[in-house]
Amino acid sequence: MNFSSKLLEDAVAEFSKLPGVGQKTALRLVLHLLNQDKPEVEKFSRAISKLRNEIQFCQVCHNISDTNICEICASHKREKSLICIVEDTRDVMAIENTNQYNGVYHVLGGLISPMDGVGPSDLQVDSLIQRLETGEVKEIIFALSATMEGDTTIFYLNKRVKHFTITISTIARGIAFGGELEYVDEVTLGRSIATRVPYENSLTR
Amino acid sequence: MNFSSKLLEDAVAEFSKLPGVGQKTALRLVLHLLNQDKPEVEKFSRAISKLRNEIQFCQVCHNISDTNICEICASHKREKSLICIVEDTRDVMAIENTNQYNGVYHVLGGLISPMDGVGPSDLQVDSLIQRLETGEVKEIIFALSATMEGDTTIFYLNKRVKHFTITISTIARGIAFGGELEYVDEVTLGRSIATRVPYENSLTR
Repeated sequence: MNFSSKLLEDAVAEFSKLPGVGQKTALRLVLHLLNQDKPEVEKFSRAISKLRNEIQFCQVCHNISDTNICEICASHKREKSLICIVEDTRDVMAIENTNQYNGVYHVLGGLISPMDGVGPSDLQVDSLIQRLETGEVKEIIFALSATMEGDTTIFYLNKRVKHFTITISTIARGIAFGGELEYVDEVTLGRSIATRVPYENSLTR
Repeated sequence: MNFSSKLLEDAVAEFSKLPGVGQKTALRLVLHLLNQDKPEVEKFSRAISKLRNEIQFCQVCHNISDTNICEICASHKREKSLICIVEDTRDVMAIENTNQYNGVYHVLGGLISPMDGVGPSDLQVDSLIQRLETGEVKEIIFALSATMEGDTTIFYLNKRVKHFTITISTIARGIAFGGELEYVDEVTLGRSIATRVPYENSLTR
């Protein structure tokens, strides 16, 4: 693209670096910002810069936080003996939105993925082991994506934690509520038959 | 959404204001930025703030520019007697990319749209009239979108400029090159039959 201004070109180039944003979308977003009032754009720019420079990660669970210890870890109402292991802060938000979970979290910060050069040392594994060594934890739940990377990570973590006397569980996999059988993929359907549960158990929420 | 951090929430809120960006996309973009190095994010933030504060508009054609007079208007190679009237800088870029146009531009900065509260006084119409009053201009080309707003704007501008002794033309409308007849909408096809051109004329590029 031939830009009539270097400033415009720079801003478009920066926006194009975002995931899923191409040059045309970037230009549209930049022209939108150009049409806004200066204080508005300044607010936008400052929010980003402030986020990156001042954000903290909870020292216990590594979730994004404004303080040393996040609200969940600091809360007296949460069950500290139950740890849900997730990939990132989006998963914490998704589980919190269900209002079904009263334990605490451990945010790994990624999944093991040799293809992307992410190994166990890039994740918050050691601090998880340290949390288990205190002896306060009774159960850990793996709530990771049902992908190759998720399964690899669970496999690795399970090996690291299985000598602790704790319950190790994973979130249930099967057909989604509201899902129609004929549209479910074969693997999920096959596995959901193989891992069928007693009818009474399926009723408890 | 329940955010674990106010800084995160602020940044997501700012990104959500962009056109076509919802909360989930905004969160994805913000988390992407969080994973980048601090100088990278600072560059992103500064490019936006700089763009808004330092950008200039060409005093002749109102195109986005780093200088008082844009490169196109300042160039001796461009035909100053031919003005192409466009909506915004994206149209200038699109036409420049064709390498088929050697005149100059006039950027209106929008189209007349009563629904959005945009009237003629919001557009760069007076400065267009001033350019025509110098007597240097021999032809103007309307290169506006083939929409209700575009047609309204052409209709209005035509009334304002028709007393000048200049040629007034619009870009050709019809079936796109490479377009298959059966997929063309009825209006375009019908109009392209009604406004058919001699075969010899259609060959000149």
